[in-house]
Amino acid sequence: MKKLINKPEDVVKEELEGLALAYPDMIKVHFDPNFVYRADAPVKGKVAVISGGGSGHEPMHGGFVGMGMLDAACPGQVFTSPTPDQMLEAAKTVHGGAGVLYIVKNYSGDIMNFEMAADMARAEGIRVLSVIIDDDVAVKDSLYTQGRRGVGTTVLAEKIVGAAAEKGYDLKRLAALCTKVNLNGRSMGMALTPCTVPMAGKPTFTLGEDEMEIGIGIHGEPGRERMKLKPADEITEMLALSIIEDPPYRRTHRIFDEDKGEWVDVELESAPFKPGDSVLAFVNSMGGTPLIELPIIYRKLHEICNKKGLKIVRNLIGPYITSLEMQGCSITLLRMDDELTELWDAPVRTPGLRWKA
Amino acid sequence: MKKLINKPEDVVKEELEGLALAYPDMIKVHFDPNFVYRADAPVKGKVAVISGGGSGHEPMHGGFVGMGMLDAACPGQVFTSPTPDQMLEAAKTVHGGAGVLYIVKNYSGDIMNFEMAADMARAEGIRVLSVIIDDDVAVKDSLYTQGRRGVGTTVLAEKIVGAAAEKGYDLKRLAALCTKVNLNGRSMGMALTPCTVPMAGKPTFTLGEDEMEIGIGIHGEPGRERMKLKPADEITEMLALSIIEDPPYRRTHRIFDEDKGEWVDVELESAPFKPGDSVLAFVNSMGGTPLIELPIIYRKLHEICNKKGLKIVRNLIGPYITSLEMQGCSITLLRMDDELTELWDAPVRTPGLRWKA
Repeated sequence: MKKLINKPEDVVKEELEGLALAYPDMIKVHFDPNFVYRADAPVKGKVAVISGGGSGHEPMHGGFVGMGMLDAACPGQVFTSPTPDQMLEAAKTVHGGAGVLYIVKNYSGDIMNFEMAADMARAEGIRVLSVIIDDDVAVKDSLYTQGRRGVGTTVLAEKIVGAAAEKGYDLKRLAALCTKVNLNGRSMGMALTPCTVPMAGKPTFTLGEDEMEIGIGIHGEPGRERMKLKPADEITEMLALSIIEDPPYRRTHRIFDEDKGEWVDVELESAPFKPGDSVLAFVNSMGGTPLIELPIIYRKLHEICNKKGLKIVRNLIGPYITSLEMQGCSITLLRMDDELTELWDAPVRTPGLRWKA
Repeated sequence: MKKLINKPEDVVKEELEGLALAYPDMIKVHFDPNFVYRADAPVKGKVAVISGGGSGHEPMHGGFVGMGMLDAACPGQVFTSPTPDQMLEAAKTVHGGAGVLYIVKNYSGDIMNFEMAADMARAEGIRVLSVIIDDDVAVKDSLYTQGRRGVGTTVLAEKIVGAAAEKGYDLKRLAALCTKVNLNGRSMGMALTPCTVPMAGKPTFTLGEDEMEIGIGIHGEPGRERMKLKPADEITEMLALSIIEDPPYRRTHRIFDEDKGEWVDVELESAPFKPGDSVLAFVNSMGGTPLIELPIIYRKLHEICNKKGLKIVRNLIGPYITSLEMQGCSITLLRMDDELTELWDAPVRTPGLRWKA
C-alpha cells in the first residue's frame, strides 16, 4: 500500500488536524467526537445545515464547510459511517436557534445513525429535519444500500441548500428545497482502477488490465457491468444516457413529521429529463484521474446533452466526491430552474468550493 | 494503459475543446496553433501575461487563464514544449498595447521556444519580456534542464503577477515582480507512483512496491534519491527541510535588455529562508494522490515551519501543478511581503483558481 500517511488508524484524525491548521478563517475542528464546523458558528437565526459520512471522499464533506454551504460535517473513518454522537454534538454546536437540516446520503449506516442523532437532538430541544440523497441510477439496492446510493447530487445539494440557508429559508422550506434538488438530480459513475482503504491495506476490488466497471459506487461497490476498456466518448455515452433516459424513479423515504411528532414514510418520485430542460452538468473525478481527462468527458457530455435537448446552464468539473485514489469519473445532471440557479451562483467560501467571497 | 481518453494523439485537442465548452465566460480556445486565452482579451492598456509548457500538468496552465491571472496559455503535447508559433499568435491575440510578459518554466525546450517567440513578436512590434521560473531545489541540472527545474512557484507567480497586471503594473515592473516571486520561491516534490504519457502508452519510469522517489520532477525526471517508502511525516520533513535549509542559490538567466535591444546574461541569487520570514505554503498533489492525504502533509509542514520560525501567512492545498495520474506531492514555500500578500488576495476568476469574483 503506497500512501502519504503515517499510521492507518490516524489518517482521519491527522487530516482533520491539517484542515484546522490550514483554514482557521473558515472552519474549526472538534475532536472526540469528530466534526468540522464553521469558524463563525453558530450563526444566529439561520438554519444550520449538517452533513457527513465516511471519509475518503474528500473534499466532501469537510471541505464544504463554511459560508454559503455547510455549518458542520461529521466524518466517519474511511468508508465508514459516522456515529450518532458526532451528528448530535455538531447540531448542539452549530444550531443558531432556527433548527438543523441533516443532509444524508443513502447508505444504511448513515441513515440509521443520522436518524438516531436527530432523535437525540430533538430530545434536547433542537428542531431537526433530515433529507436523504439517493441519486445513483446505476443500481437499485447495493452492498450498503436499500434503494439507490447517494452520490454526486449531494455536493450540489450542499451548495444550493447552504446558499438558501444563508438567504434565510426556514427549516421546512429548506428541507423541501433539498428534496427538490434530490428529486431533480441523477448520477452514475465508473472506475478504471480500485482504491485501497488505509486500514485494509489492499484494494477494495480488482480489475483486469483491460477492464473497467460501469456504475460503480463511491466505495468500490459493484456497478452495472464489468467490461473491456472503451474510449472516453463511449464511456461518457454510457453514463450520460443512463442518466438522461432513466425512467421515473419512485422511492419511499422515512421523514420526520413534526406535526405528528414521529417518523413517517413518504413516497417520492423523480421525473425523467425531457427536451427543453436546463441542467447543471457535474463531471467528477473519482480522485486519481488526471485532470486533463475531465474536459474530454465534458466535451462529449455537452454534445450528448445538446442532442437530447438538454441545455447546460451551469457546470462543475473536478474532484469533489472522490473515492481515495480510484481512477474514474462520475457524471451528475441536475435539472435547474431560476431558484436553483440563483442559489448555485450565490457566494460560497469553503476549503473545497469558493467564489464571489 | 488505463485512461479516460479517445485516441492518444487527440488528448490535448479534445481537452481544449472541453475547456472551451465548459468556461465560455472565462476563456476562449484558438486551435492551430493551440492556445487558451481570456474571453475578454485583449484588455486595453494592461500588460498581457502569457505562460505555457507541456500538457499533463493540469490545471496549469490553461486552467489559470482568466481575470486576475493569465491572459493566455500555450499547451504543448503531453510533457512536450509548445512551439514558438503558439506563443507568437497568443501574444498577437491578447496584447492590449502595454506589452507582453512571458512566464517560462526552466526546461530547455520551453526556454528556446519562448525566446524565439519573443524575438518574432518584437519583430512584429510587440514589446515582450520573459521571466524564467527555476525553483526546484531537488537537483541542479536535470534530464531536460540546465539549472534548476521550474515547478510549483510557477502557479504562485501566475496568480501574483496576474493580479499585478490587473492592477496596472507596467511591463518592466511586472517582470521585476515575477523575478522577485521566483527568487523567493523554492519547491521540492516526490512520487509514490509513476505516470503514463498517452502517446507512450507505458509508465515514464518504474518504482518498486515499497519504493518512492524523493526530489522527482513533474515529468517523472529522476530526483535526489530512490528509497524505501516512509511515513508522511518523514517525507514532509525531507521535502520541507531541503527547501528551508537550501543555501543561497545563484544562477544566470538570459533576459532581453530593451535598452541594448539584445539578450543579456544576468546573475540572480535566491536568499535562504530565515527565522521571522512570512511564507505562503503550497502543498500540491501530483495528480493521483487521494485528497485526504494533503492536509496530513500540511499538518506536518505547519509544525516544521513553526519550529524553523517561518510564519505561514497564506496557503494553497490541492492539485494545481500535476503529473497526470502520478501519486505524490510537492511542497513550495514562497517568502511573502505586503505586496505579494495583497496581490495573492486579489480577485481571480479562472477555471482552476477562483475567489472574490
